Order: sequence, then structure tokens, then C-alpha cells
Amino acid sequence: MKTDQAAPAGPDVLLSRLRETAPLVQCITNYVAMNLAANVLLAAGASPAMVHTEEEAGEFAGIAQALTVNIGTVSPPWVAGMMAAVRGATAAGRPWVLDPVAHFATGFRRVVVADLLAQHPAVIRGNASEILALGGGESAGQGVDSGDPVERAEAAAMDLARTQGAVVAVTGPVDFVTDGSRSARIAGGSALMPKVTAMGCSLTGLIGGFVGAAPDAPLDATVAALAAFAAAGSAAGEAAEGPGSFTPRFLDALHRLDAATLDRRAEVTAA
Amino acid sequence: MKTDQAAPAGPDVLLSRLRETAPLVQCITNYVAMNLAANVLLAAGASPAMVHTEEEAGEFAGIAQALTVNIGTVSPPWVAGMMAAVRGATAAGRPWVLDPVAHFATGFRRVVVADLLAQHPAVIRGNASEILALGGGESAGQGVDSGDPVERAEAAAMDLARTQGAVVAVTGPVDFVTDGSRSARIAGGSALMPKVTAMGCSLTGLIGGFVGAAPDAPLDATVAALAAFAAAGSAAGEAAEGPGSFTPRFLDALHRLDAATLDRRAEVTAA
Amino acid sequence: MKTDQAAPAGPDVLLSRLRETAPLVQCITNYVAMNLAANVLLAAGASPAMVHTEEEAGEFAGIAQALTVNIGTVSPPWVAGMMAAVRGATAAGRPWVLDPVAHFATGFRRVVVADLLAQHPAVIRGNASEILALGGGESAGQGVDSGDPVERAEAAAMDLARTQGAVVAVTGPVDFVTDGSRSARIAGGSALMPKVTAMGCSLTGLIGGFVGAAPDAPLDATVAALAAFAAAGSAAGEAAEGPGSFTPRFLDALHRLDAATLDRRAEVTAA
Repeated sequence: MKTDQAAPAGPDVLLSRLRETAPLVQCITNYVAMNLAANVLLAAGASPAMVHTEEEAGEFAGIAQALTVNIGTVSPPWVAGMMAAVRGATAAGRPWVLDPVAHFATGFRRVVVADLLAQHPAVIRGNASEILALGGGESAGQGVDSGDPVERAEAAAMDLARTQGAVVAVTGPVDFVTDGSRSARIAGGSALMPKVTAMGCSLTGLIGGFVGAAPDAPLDATVAALAAFAAAGSAAGEAAEGPGSFTPRFLDALHRLDAATLDRRAEVTAA
Repeated sequence: MKTDQAAPAGPDVLLSRLRETAPLVQCITNYVAMNLAANVLLAAGASPAMVHTEEEAGEFAGIAQALTVNIGTVSPPWVAGMMAAVRGATAAGRPWVLDPVAHFATGFRRVVVADLLAQHPAVIRGNASEILALGGGESAGQGVDSGDPVERAEAAAMDLARTQGAVVAVTGPVDFVTDGSRSARIAGGSALMPKVTAMGCSLTGLIGGFVGAAPDAPLDATVAALAAFAAAGSAAGEAAEGPGSFTPRFLDALHRLDAATLDRRAEVTAA
Repeated sequence: MKTDQAAPAGPDVLLSRLRETAPLVQCITNYVAMNLAANVLLAAGASPAMVHTEEEAGEFAGIAQALTVNIGTVSPPWVAGMMAAVRGATAAGRPWVLDPVAHFATGFRRVVVADLLAQHPAVIRGNASEILALGGGESAGQGVDSGDPVERAEAAAMDLARTQGAVVAVTGPVDFVTDGSRSARIAGGSALMPKVTAMGCSLTGLIGGFVGAAPDAPLDATVAALAAFAAAGSAAGEAAEGPGSFTPRFLDALHRLDAATLDRRAEVTAA
């Protein structure tokens, strides 16, 4: 995979940049994920802020280096805050990341995601069922857990990336990420990760951290976030005795992550 | 204790069924409990989804195998979502579980619980103070922690089970569960459990998982959930150094729980 | 430092009183902090209750021994609940604690904090950037993390304490606390604490526990809460391998905290 023209950089370089710049990341995410997402960003070296209400979300987006929007426990007042934040980020020229949790499950959710997609996210991250359904395809998903393998969603991801002019990441045992012309796969992680709630939502937060540190290179930034997550997940998974002990070990591993571990535990290949 | 006529089954059989079917459980719970409740359901083998807003809660209840409603941090928009979800679950013939957190503490809470009770939950789970007060009795409870021993609430639980046509579980150091004619006690757990927030709320979520896996046997399913919780709590309590290290160990134990551990660490007796 | 006239007492005495009386503490805090704040209060020996909606927050404040208000993820319905709770606590003669998270970041937040300050909190706790900005000074803060050292905010804290008639705590690597005439510094803790989200918010909750146990001695109670937090943080920091394993160890340490550890690991000096 060739890296972005503007700022070609591998995961290790971008991790260093994240830690040096400690970008302020506004996360509008669901109630389940908020604590873990904030801890993931802090452990990696960013500065998270959970600010969501319509009265201030747009103003705050102008202060932050990046914005993430996750619809996990969305309700109408939160939609208003999300839209205000997205407009604020756009006006300030800041990238934002969309996480369309189970958007296919209800009519309300489908409308919310359509409105958000129309506002041009820089990155879209979902599981295979979510990305398949965004592309208009049939998915086996019901709730928030994916019912489809990542490979089934690769074509949909590429189409979506082209239509939206966005980076699209399909995450699972092996992640797939594409901007429509260049693509990569990221292997690593642990089989325990789907047994821990809000891991995907927290990964969306971490993508916000990396695109905040490298706003001109959203594909490289997304690859770096996925690689850091996969490397920390691999380290934690080896040492954990189950999904409970996985989480503290995962945050420890993210905090201690260095270039050698990143290289050894996350496998990034051109696709 | 004789088991349900329709599907007589012990905790080990029902735990296997839960893992095989991975029921989708819609949890409307409080902000404090959401993360732990989702992790408890995932560790046990179910698929949790936190969906609460009125615009979609009823529609989603038709997709899920079971619904749980907990009023811990309730406010009027959440009441509307709870009622929509309960109606959706009822229309779809799915069981729902009520957790009336500190319902006696304020006038608002009393009205909310009365409205929910009128919608016929399949299972009601509370601490002794909550079940006593549901039965119209005097309780020593003030906040969310119980001020009464489980035994004091047994008669109220049986009355409530008969009046409501529901399974009622009073949880504490030794749990009491009844459908009004058959009753059981479940011993196990750890003295650290009352020192960890949202354990009771998460147990309500887990009951949702078991009744989702065995909707025709709500008494057996509730007993199985309490037994799984007690067994995992016992294992975690032995190894933990305090309430902080208890939680990851508890989730690990729930994830690794097998029939032998369930049998050895949770004592189920007819009452 | 001389202790309060009404009830002179060191941190060890007040920790014992907290455990003996197990005060019911109503916490209106942000979504990120709720779970940790509740677990901190439980581990220390208090009884937390997260009750926030306008329909019951004031009524509940009359039952609780203390109230804490944190604006981290505030929105208009929560402001209404906060104001109702504050009025309820005031009417019942109960102390309340204000945590003005990032109040300088947006116009909405500034108005909310001005309205809360006008209701006379017994204690105000913030990081240096927050306390500096409350005093009308320039701060380097942007999001929720402090951009200023504690020492820079000491004069502002003393002014604020005098103007408000409140105890003001500026927390950081070494905390500064003052009632405008008497002041103290509390050293201890761990460099990992700023890498764990909601630690400051949870400390605000713990201050609520101590002022609930010693309502006539808000300065001593605040010092005791900071000392307990610093001691548990120091113990946890030594044993942790990163911010993930810090949190369970911190709760364990708080649960097991005794007078000797408190004295050895937290250094309280008159300022």
C-alpha cells in the first residue's frame, strides 16, 4: 500500500505524532462506550472530551482537532447535537469520523445515518454487517454484533469510499480499510475483543485521535489507529484470562506501545 | 424444587442453551450499569443491545429475544422509551424483566414503577427493600442499597408473584426466587459484590439473557441466571484483593463458567 | 494547618466516620464518570445514588447526606435537575460540592457554572485551569485536561474561597485546598492518574462522601478526601503496569485503606 501523498507515514511515526501533539478529540459516542473510549484515547496519548449537547457541540468542535460520532444509544436530542458538532467541525476544517452502530436495525436509525452521511465524514468505521448495509446490501446483522465476515463487505467498502469520498474501515478479525483506490488489511488483535463491549466504538474514538494528529492523511491515520489497536489487543489477549482481565491489560498495552511492538504484533499489508 | 413443566432444565443445561442461541437482549438500564451489564451478557454468551429511545425502542423489542427495564437513572424521555419497548416486547410475545431500583425513594419513581408493573413483566428482580416496598410493606431502604435482609421479603415476593403472575427474585447474600407456587434459594457469590456498583442491575440483564434463551421457563431461567452469577461471584471473590480486582475476575469467571463450577460454587435448594 | 473549630479531625478519623455512617451521597455527574464515581464511593464506604432528573432530584436531595454536581456532559434537562437538587439540598441543610468541568470551554458551560455558583456550594473542586478561569484569570486549558500547574491557581483559589464562602480544592500532582483563611497541600497519588478518565470527577464524588460524614467541617472533610485519594493512588500506582491495571488496584486500595497507609502515603502540610 502506498501511503497518502501529503504526509506518507507509517503507524509508528503517526503514533509518535499523536503523543507529541496530544490532539483534543471531541467524542459523541454512546453511554456504554464513553468511559472506555476516553480511556483508550488517554492511554494512547490523546486528550478526549465528551461534549454532545446542541447548545455547545458545534462551538466545541471548533476547538477540537477532530470529532467522532457514534450512534449507539442515539435519541433525538443527541442527533441535534451530532449535527451541530458535524457542522462545527466542517466549518473549522476538522475531520470527523462516523460509526453507524446497527444503523439497519430500525427506521429511526436509518434516517439518522442517512442525515449524517450527507455531511461528509472523513472516515467511516463499522463492522461488516454495518458496512454491507450502508452500501445497500443484505446483511446478516441484527443487533450491534456483526453477522457477516469482513471479506463479504470489502466491495461495499470500496464503493462507499468512492461515493462518499471517505476512508472506510471494516473491522473484524482482520480489518479492511480503503479510500476507494488504495486499500490495506490489518491483522492482529485477540479473539476476546468481540467479548468486550464497546471495543469497536473505542476504536472509532482512537481513529479520531489519529486523524486529529494527521488530518491531511486520513487513510494513513486510520491504518495507524487500527494497527495500534490490533497490536495492543494482541498483547493483552496473550496475557488475559478472559474478557474481564483483557480490558485493563489492553489499556496498559496501548499506553506502553512502542514501534517494535507495533511492528511485531500488527500486520499491515496492501490489499 | 420442581422445574417448569414446559421445559424442565437445570442451570447447566440453560447455560449451554444461552451460549448456543446467543439471544439478542435489549437492555434499557441506567447509565451506571450499561457497560457492566453489556459485558456480563457478552461474557455469558448473549448479545446485548442498549436501545432506549421512544422512536425505536418498540420496533427493536420485536427483533430481540428478551427485554430488560431498569429504572436506576430514569427520566421522562426514558419512561416513554421503556413503555414503547414493553409494548413492543408484549406484542411480539417476548418476555421482559423489571428491575425497580429504589422505587420507593421518590414520588416520581413510584409512579413509573406502578405504570411498568401494570404491563406484566415476566420476571421482577430487586433487593429485599425494593421487593418489600413493592408489596406495600415497610422497608428500611433509602437509596439503592438494601436496608433489609432477604428473608424479610420472602412473603412479599410470593404475594407479588401471585398477584403479578410473574417470577420474583429477591437477591442478596442468599437469593430467593419464586413464581408464587414453587420457590428456591440460591447461595454463592461474594461479600465484595455489594461493594461493586451495578452488580444487581447486571444480574437483571443476565436474567434477560436466560429468559431469552428459555422463554417458556421463566422460573428455571431466573434460577439459572442467579446460579451463574453466584458461581462466577464465588470464584472471583476468592481470587480478588478488593472490589476493583473483583470485576475483571468476575467477567473472566462468567466467560469460563462450566457445569462443574456451576454445580460446585452455586447452591440451589428448593424453598 | 489548624483543623475546623467545630470538629477538628484528621483524615484517619474522618475515614472511620465515613465508614461508620455510610452516608448516602447523591451524585449528579457526567456519563463518563458515573460508574467509577459510584465504585469509588462504595470502595471508601459510602452509599452512592445517581439521581438527576428534575422530577425527583430535589426530593432525593432531602434524603441524601450530601450532593455532588459535575457538569462534564451537561445538557439543559440536566441543568434543571442540578438546580432542583441544589435547592433541595440547601432547603434540607445538606452540603453540596461543585465540579465545574471545562466551564471555560463554551458559552453554554459558562452560564451553567455561573448559575450554580450563585447557589453557594460548600466545596468547589477543579483542576488548575478550571479554578484559574473561575477567578476570571487566563488559563491554558482547552478541554477537560488542565493546561496549568496547581501553583498558578493558588491565589485564585483563595480569592474564590473568600468570595464564595466555600472550600476550594485545586487538584493535580500536589493538591491545594483552602477556605480562604486556612490552606493545605496534599501530596501523593500517581503519575498514571491523569491517564485514567474521570479520576477528578470521582474525587469530587468522594469529597461528597466525606462532607456527608462531616458536614460541619468541610475543610477537614475535603482534606481527608484528597488524602484518601492520594494514598490509594500512590499504592495503586506502585503496583500498576499502566492506566488500565491502575483502576482496579486503586479501588482495592481505597477499600483496604487504613490509618497507617493514609499517614504513610499521603502527605498533608499546612500552606
